[in-house]
Amino acid sequence: MENLECIFCQKKYPMDIFNPFCPECQEPLLYPSPSKKRKFSLEKTSPLEKFLDFLPLSKIAPNLSLGEGNTPLLNLNRLRENFNFPPVFIKNETVNPLACFKDRGTAVAVQKAQSLGIKRIGTVSTGNMASSTAAYGAKAGLETFVLLKNDISTDKLLMTSMFSPILVKVEGDYGELFYKSFSLGRKHNIYFMNSVDPFRIEGYKVTGFEIFLQLESRIPQYIFAPVSSGGHLIGLMRAFLDLKKEGFIQHLPSFVGVQARGCSPIAQAYASGKSKVKRIKKAKTIAHSISNPDPPGGNIVLELIRENKGIILDVSDKEILKAQKMLAELEGIFCEPASSTALAGLLKLSEKDKLKPNDRIVLVITGSGLKAMDILDPSRINVRETTILSLEKTLDSLVE
Amino acid sequence: MENLECIFCQKKYPMDIFNPFCPECQEPLLYPSPSKKRKFSLEKTSPLEKFLDFLPLSKIAPNLSLGEGNTPLLNLNRLRENFNFPPVFIKNETVNPLACFKDRGTAVAVQKAQSLGIKRIGTVSTGNMASSTAAYGAKAGLETFVLLKNDISTDKLLMTSMFSPILVKVEGDYGELFYKSFSLGRKHNIYFMNSVDPFRIEGYKVTGFEIFLQLESRIPQYIFAPVSSGGHLIGLMRAFLDLKKEGFIQHLPSFVGVQARGCSPIAQAYASGKSKVKRIKKAKTIAHSISNPDPPGGNIVLELIRENKGIILDVSDKEILKAQKMLAELEGIFCEPASSTALAGLLKLSEKDKLKPNDRIVLVITGSGLKAMDILDPSRINVRETTILSLEKTLDSLVE
Repeated sequence: MENLECIFCQKKYPMDIFNPFCPECQEPLLYPSPSKKRKFSLEKTSPLEKFLDFLPLSKIAPNLSLGEGNTPLLNLNRLRENFNFPPVFIKNETVNPLACFKDRGTAVAVQKAQSLGIKRIGTVSTGNMASSTAAYGAKAGLETFVLLKNDISTDKLLMTSMFSPILVKVEGDYGELFYKSFSLGRKHNIYFMNSVDPFRIEGYKVTGFEIFLQLESRIPQYIFAPVSSGGHLIGLMRAFLDLKKEGFIQHLPSFVGVQARGCSPIAQAYASGKSKVKRIKKAKTIAHSISNPDPPGGNIVLELIRENKGIILDVSDKEILKAQKMLAELEGIFCEPASSTALAGLLKLSEKDKLKPNDRIVLVITGSGLKAMDILDPSRINVRETTILSLEKTLDSLVE
Repeated sequence: MENLECIFCQKKYPMDIFNPFCPECQEPLLYPSPSKKRKFSLEKTSPLEKFLDFLPLSKIAPNLSLGEGNTPLLNLNRLRENFNFPPVFIKNETVNPLACFKDRGTAVAVQKAQSLGIKRIGTVSTGNMASSTAAYGAKAGLETFVLLKNDISTDKLLMTSMFSPILVKVEGDYGELFYKSFSLGRKHNIYFMNSVDPFRIEGYKVTGFEIFLQLESRIPQYIFAPVSSGGHLIGLMRAFLDLKKEGFIQHLPSFVGVQARGCSPIAQAYASGKSKVKRIKKAKTIAHSISNPDPPGGNIVLELIRENKGIILDVSDKEILKAQKMLAELEGIFCEPASSTALAGLLKLSEKDKLKPNDRIVLVITGSGLKAMDILDPSRINVRETTILSLEKTLDSLVE
């Protein structure tokens, strides 16, 4: 029998896949770390097999994988030179199968579903998690239920619909929908692997392990990551907590969670020294993928950030778009606005805190710009028009 | 001094980066294979370093990489079971940095540019090559010229413009523009790394080497790949020709190049037994990324296919869309229509030729479905609408 634990009440409870929340304080339950000694299986190529000891799975079914993970860590030389920064890297999660970090969590949750004999899975999503869950559900041959906000963009709906899940647009409060999905899931044996699902969060740890190995078993000084529901940042931090527990490292990197100012409930609680996140009324930001006004993992994020001397920042839409453009122009990286918050956060922090020349900085870039084409402004494209006959003259004038 | 060679005239010429075409027959020149013994450097993780011996480069500048390659080879179990096929795999090139196989070629061509001290690069593209070249140009700090057809989709233009290249839309014949770019490139020292650039083609070989290693140093019976200009298929075939030359394999896989019926000049020439491709007047297919009516590598493709007992097929738009949907529904893969031609080709071939149980089949999936959202039909999305209050009833009716 497996347990889940509440980090606030510090109690363990028998795992209930249909309701992974603390019966006492209602916070999301997490998968407890085992007492046995854990090690990497570096001879494996699949990330889930490589880090199996650290995952809530006893074995990996290779046929459920879409090839998630093993993403590059890229050195941002031109950005570094421009700002006289210490070494800055991005962990490029946009090259996951569905172009988003969510795949790492979905991969582990779907493995768990299969190991438990579950035939129906579901998710409540504003976009990226919908396509990820629908795709892995298709690969595994599971019946997949996707509950969506009724203002989802047509492109995100189109992409998700390709995998033929059962799609339901729901009018009403998104936070309420999130919690309601669990009781309906129990009724119909649908495992709702939502944003702070404990197995999903364990999957995000793999990104942290990869960063550690790609830096040749060293830790960066800072890790910047966008924060929405909180699940991703919790997973990243838990990776380094695991590494510390196993004696690989002595202390944690400084984690910097970045929110969009137009939807920054966790940053607001952090700034005012509160230990609980208060939901905000309405999100207003172009960073749609991180606009969760009622983040279910918010309190855990605050707790882990405080315990480990991290920071939560917010950045404006203007700073986000500037950082998105900078990553493209200087480094050839096309990410969605939700992801460029990481760079915007670094630029903001570097104004206040002096970065040291030997610091190593990692920005986790979570999703492809192809997922948010609707926020780009066609009127700002700088394109010349000419004919084949006049092309020589046009080029002459451009090159001079 | 480096040479390029013409496979038709069987002569070598001093390499001219601004005009890599045979002065006698005007066919694209290719990079000759060296006389020295070549081997894999399996201890390296970067694909370009791993296969450096097989590439037209003496060393790799790591700062020019966007993390291309190392893409997964996925087992299509559900498709296999549905059709009673032998093992079918996809080589998932959609998870390259710009979500397309082009990155592999651009990566090598940009390395070459830097090694030659070239400061300006360019490309003539209908879309995918534009964003790839602009991104790698940005990463390398090169001035990048992108010449586009004037009917390019807004989304493709938007994506490319993020990297701030010099963008020029050109009215007129695309084939003419392709050839004209070289003379203008010479005038202004712009290295036009177009579709059949010899260094780009060498970059595509890496995909072939990865397939070979991922199949544990065995060759598949069939490799299916979409064909447009011909550059990609030429590169894939050259990988296995190299492996044969070095004694790794005894014979080549059967290559099956697949074109869209609405733009299939190479398939038409193949079917009628001609040795030269005749350009077609007008392309008409939803597979925009492979709709080149005047493929510059067409004659080389025909020659290599004939020499090595390959096949060129064409498939209808209806078959292409059906295959795209099948890959998503059964295997969780979302690719653009140009890519699903590979599966459509397999389905077509399997009707005529009996596949043997021990055959291994590889489909090269070249680009992400996110690059062709415009061909998806929003009116066909099957989505229920409900409210939070009625959600239970809605789910009851869907599950029953």
